[in-house]
Amino acid sequence: MSLRNDLEDVANRMRISSIQMVDAAKSGHTTSSCSAAEIMATLFFHEMRYDVKEPKSASADRFVLSKGHACPILYAAWEEAGLLTHDDVLSLRKIASDIEGHPTPRLNFIDVATGSLGQGFSCAAGMAYVGKYVDKASYRVYCLMGDGEIAEGSVWEAAGFASHYNLDNLVVIVDANRLGQSQETSIGHNVEVYAARFAAFGFHQIVVDGHNVDELLAAFEEAKKDHKKPTAIIAKTYKGRGLEGLEDKDNWHGKPAPISTIDGVKARLHGSEKGKLVASKPVDDAPKVDLQLGHIKIATPEYKLGEKMATRAAYGTALAKLGDVSNRVMGFDGDTKNSTFSEKLLKKHPDQFVECFIAEQNMVGVAIGAGCRHRAIPFASTFGAFFMRAADQIRMAAVSFANLKLVGSHVGVSIGEDGPSQMALEDLAFFCTIPNGVVLYPTDAVSAERATELAANIDGIVYIRTGRPALPVIYGNDEHFEIGKGKLVKHSANDKILLVGAGVTLYEADKAAQELEKEGIHCAVVDLFSVKPIDANLLIEQARRVGGRVLTVEDHYPEGGLGCAVRRALSDEPNVRVRSLAVREVPRSGGPDELVDKYGISARHIVNAVKEFN
Amino acid sequence: MSLRNDLEDVANRMRISSIQMVDAAKSGHTTSSCSAAEIMATLFFHEMRYDVKEPKSASADRFVLSKGHACPILYAAWEEAGLLTHDDVLSLRKIASDIEGHPTPRLNFIDVATGSLGQGFSCAAGMAYVGKYVDKASYRVYCLMGDGEIAEGSVWEAAGFASHYNLDNLVVIVDANRLGQSQETSIGHNVEVYAARFAAFGFHQIVVDGHNVDELLAAFEEAKKDHKKPTAIIAKTYKGRGLEGLEDKDNWHGKPAPISTIDGVKARLHGSEKGKLVASKPVDDAPKVDLQLGHIKIATPEYKLGEKMATRAAYGTALAKLGDVSNRVMGFDGDTKNSTFSEKLLKKHPDQFVECFIAEQNMVGVAIGAGCRHRAIPFASTFGAFFMRAADQIRMAAVSFANLKLVGSHVGVSIGEDGPSQMALEDLAFFCTIPNGVVLYPTDAVSAERATELAANIDGIVYIRTGRPALPVIYGNDEHFEIGKGKLVKHSANDKILLVGAGVTLYEADKAAQELEKEGIHCAVVDLFSVKPIDANLLIEQARRVGGRVLTVEDHYPEGGLGCAVRRALSDEPNVRVRSLAVREVPRSGGPDELVDKYGISARHIVNAVKEFN
Repeated sequence: MSLRNDLEDVANRMRISSIQMVDAAKSGHTTSSCSAAEIMATLFFHEMRYDVKEPKSASADRFVLSKGHACPILYAAWEEAGLLTHDDVLSLRKIASDIEGHPTPRLNFIDVATGSLGQGFSCAAGMAYVGKYVDKASYRVYCLMGDGEIAEGSVWEAAGFASHYNLDNLVVIVDANRLGQSQETSIGHNVEVYAARFAAFGFHQIVVDGHNVDELLAAFEEAKKDHKKPTAIIAKTYKGRGLEGLEDKDNWHGKPAPISTIDGVKARLHGSEKGKLVASKPVDDAPKVDLQLGHIKIATPEYKLGEKMATRAAYGTALAKLGDVSNRVMGFDGDTKNSTFSEKLLKKHPDQFVECFIAEQNMVGVAIGAGCRHRAIPFASTFGAFFMRAADQIRMAAVSFANLKLVGSHVGVSIGEDGPSQMALEDLAFFCTIPNGVVLYPTDAVSAERATELAANIDGIVYIRTGRPALPVIYGNDEHFEIGKGKLVKHSANDKILLVGAGVTLYEADKAAQELEKEGIHCAVVDLFSVKPIDANLLIEQARRVGGRVLTVEDHYPEGGLGCAVRRALSDEPNVRVRSLAVREVPRSGGPDELVDKYGISARHIVNAVKEFN
Repeated sequence: MSLRNDLEDVANRMRISSIQMVDAAKSGHTTSSCSAAEIMATLFFHEMRYDVKEPKSASADRFVLSKGHACPILYAAWEEAGLLTHDDVLSLRKIASDIEGHPTPRLNFIDVATGSLGQGFSCAAGMAYVGKYVDKASYRVYCLMGDGEIAEGSVWEAAGFASHYNLDNLVVIVDANRLGQSQETSIGHNVEVYAARFAAFGFHQIVVDGHNVDELLAAFEEAKKDHKKPTAIIAKTYKGRGLEGLEDKDNWHGKPAPISTIDGVKARLHGSEKGKLVASKPVDDAPKVDLQLGHIKIATPEYKLGEKMATRAAYGTALAKLGDVSNRVMGFDGDTKNSTFSEKLLKKHPDQFVECFIAEQNMVGVAIGAGCRHRAIPFASTFGAFFMRAADQIRMAAVSFANLKLVGSHVGVSIGEDGPSQMALEDLAFFCTIPNGVVLYPTDAVSAERATELAANIDGIVYIRTGRPALPVIYGNDEHFEIGKGKLVKHSANDKILLVGAGVTLYEADKAAQELEKEGIHCAVVDLFSVKPIDANLLIEQARRVGGRVLTVEDHYPEGGLGCAVRRALSDEPNVRVRSLAVREVPRSGGPDELVDKYGISARHIVNAVKEFN
């Protein structure tokens, strides 16, 4: 038996298993799996180096199935390799099974969840970057994409990134099966168009018949030559290949193939035994890494009380300090490093900093990839508003249970003259939805440094909201901060209302409280700090103590932000009422203080709201 | 005087004005403006056809400044054309002025707000699509981009779209000035790389010296030839061109140039008079369009009570009916039309349907562009989860005060087996932040049709959340729905709690109420329908009536959705407590009913929550 026959048999056994599992599930993507059968067989049983006993070892080659809906063929590959049983794969899409409808890292061979198209490539590029420049190891990264998803812009962001950094350890394979979900793709089978696009984006490109294992084997060999470029293999394939009556036909996306199609596939088997082809073991040259989660300590902040310092600047300082104590803290930038101050890390530890240019989706995807297999603690920063560009990647990061730190600067109207396009006013609403996510909103430089340190220490998604204006330091350098804990910054025995703010609005609340005090109206003031999880105990205790009146003030739209978080914490409290000041329309350009006042979140408005709160 | 000298003088006068306005504002982007001075002069004073008296007339050429931070040069162009006075432009970035830090449609010559990079191209492509295929008019569309923003994937989505539809009335100009905000761009001055990328994406491309008006004039002429392709003009320029000591220098992004730089620019003037060059008038061949907002009526729904019908299917039906009564209702799809059921419009009115392939950012941008100047009522639909891909475009649509309808299907865990990557569980949180936005969440087919009709009738951003499962029709075909109004679907004199749901959870709430009734526990049930604006009166009235206990149930994460909307409406009510059932972790694959139960939002959980609610 030739290698070719062996691989063809692997491919066809995987086809049969895919047909069976989708049939058992009564839903799924058989035809999208079958177009990739030879690609997957060649990758998993000749090209890639891994150990079935430890699929995610540090040194093993990485595989990302960007076209996540084709997961039956991936599950079939791991069945063929001996990691999964046939019963395992037949549990596809069942509630008790981790063999889900799209891959998630609940499975021990998945690094990143896929299923929102066009995202896997960026994650793969992040892994390849770390492999080449940080681990300096010989593992390679493979990413299988569909042709439909090539229309996603994130793909071209990733391509630009991969070629800029000469990621010659990265191979993307396009399963160009012509058909999307609802019709032919824009490019159809004009595979030379894909080749030209990848070439223009700096890739070494190879066009092959994606059902010809010899061509695939040769292409993977060629990809390893010293091109100093990443490689794109454009594999011309047919959707539903091998399924009688279904091949290259519309209207078979996301549907089980008739079980009878198995017969035709079986007829093509050459008789090679399952288990004959075994993947090569990885070269064990990736360094051991201990991220020291929970134990990272940065140098104590060095501010004077009252000193003016923007939280974004303090973030930069803390990030650079993190770089001092951990060589696996990495910074990712979208050409805003001189605004977010992440450039402080670049200046001190250039090897730990990655410029991703103006491509936020890819920046976040690369950061997710870099964090996989505990190789790095990725911090990505840009303007808070521009993280909305990567909202889908961040949503998927939650499904990936990723370790990812995102720091958004220039939040709210207090940025001033640049105007509404640059103001994050919905970031809290979005980031608070991330399950198990942490959202920190430090008010001063000391708390911003501590927020950065806290973020580095936990394994999960953390968003830190930093501000543009330089405002006074209010905490001593030794002040202790915790995730889930706020600070009662002002109180007296006579308080009649609780004011809750963070960032610029905490200063406004404090100003208002001082002014009201002169009139004999006493206010407690809480610096929320941790928007999620929230310090419900503190809020309940204080809300009760002051008699149930709570006023929140935030430089954010009224929905989903600080006010809503406080309401959730207090909503089971009888006799507590919460009113909110927030930005209630699309703002405009102007001076920071003018805008804070115009949009109703300044001390003056707080004073009025307190007086009107009966 | 030659045309060349005249245009050079225009460019240099615009430079001087840009220097002056940014100097007066004390912030802004002079150097990014100056690299584009000759491009803008050539466009506005030779190439483009418009009437200063009516800059946004239907037939005028469109101009989109995708690199929005360079707006000083745009304001200077309109000053040169006589629309703005010098005092106007000197009010740049002042709070009382519409001459903002980035352009917004508060100005009568701006179609779409820009400032989040890489978005203008999609909007321009939408305008060009409508110009060519809907208006069938001779106006042309010009989009000026920076080179830094070319890294944004949305640019390549737009490029793929524009070439797929042969938008030969579209010209994009890349102001390739080499420098980004914080460093050199990835491509630098290798302008041939941009040319190759645009060529690979199906554009006719022309490389020019962007400071040579003769080359620019020739390029614009060439773009008009019959290529059957859109054109990309790659203009090699220098950031800060003409500003002594600043040209091609780093660290001058977003800063005023010294006022003394004016002297050097003045020295280059040939002495051509301001006002000598006047733009040609548009060819008045765009049809008159009346969108009939507020007066569109679709055929009455035709369902039977209890008939099972998914709201996504009813949306498709209503969209097709809208097509029957308005030839300016347009559908935009991201290759999910057979899932969202927007294909019903395609089948009935193919001319009103645009396949945008799997590129949601561009789909939304194209829809925004199509809606400009009241040419169309754009409905874009895909899975609710995948609108997160376009979150930044949608955020910017709010800044554009766009007329845009977005319909997201496959929301929540009730989609079942496809798993978490396909489930919208944060869409309400995001869409509720849009200022003046409307968020409708119809429960049954009748209300879904009416929601679609209501959306078409208003000028603004509307999100409609539709579901995957086929569930019983609960409203009569004549039931009346309004934005901002909910429905009390169940009540009695003995109600002790108010249940609030929408979509799949309304059925669960109803089931729970029926079960509880058997045990003598009476519940009022509200179908929220309009999440934003919310029916606060109904909620307050019912919450008071039942004694203050409110339980919300939603197929969404706990933050920012239905529960938070209800809490905001009730938060000033003393003695009202709100508890919420929602999806509290990353869900997994499984059967729809199994998942609804597993994640705590089924009738069984509602029954328990009601019993525990003391």
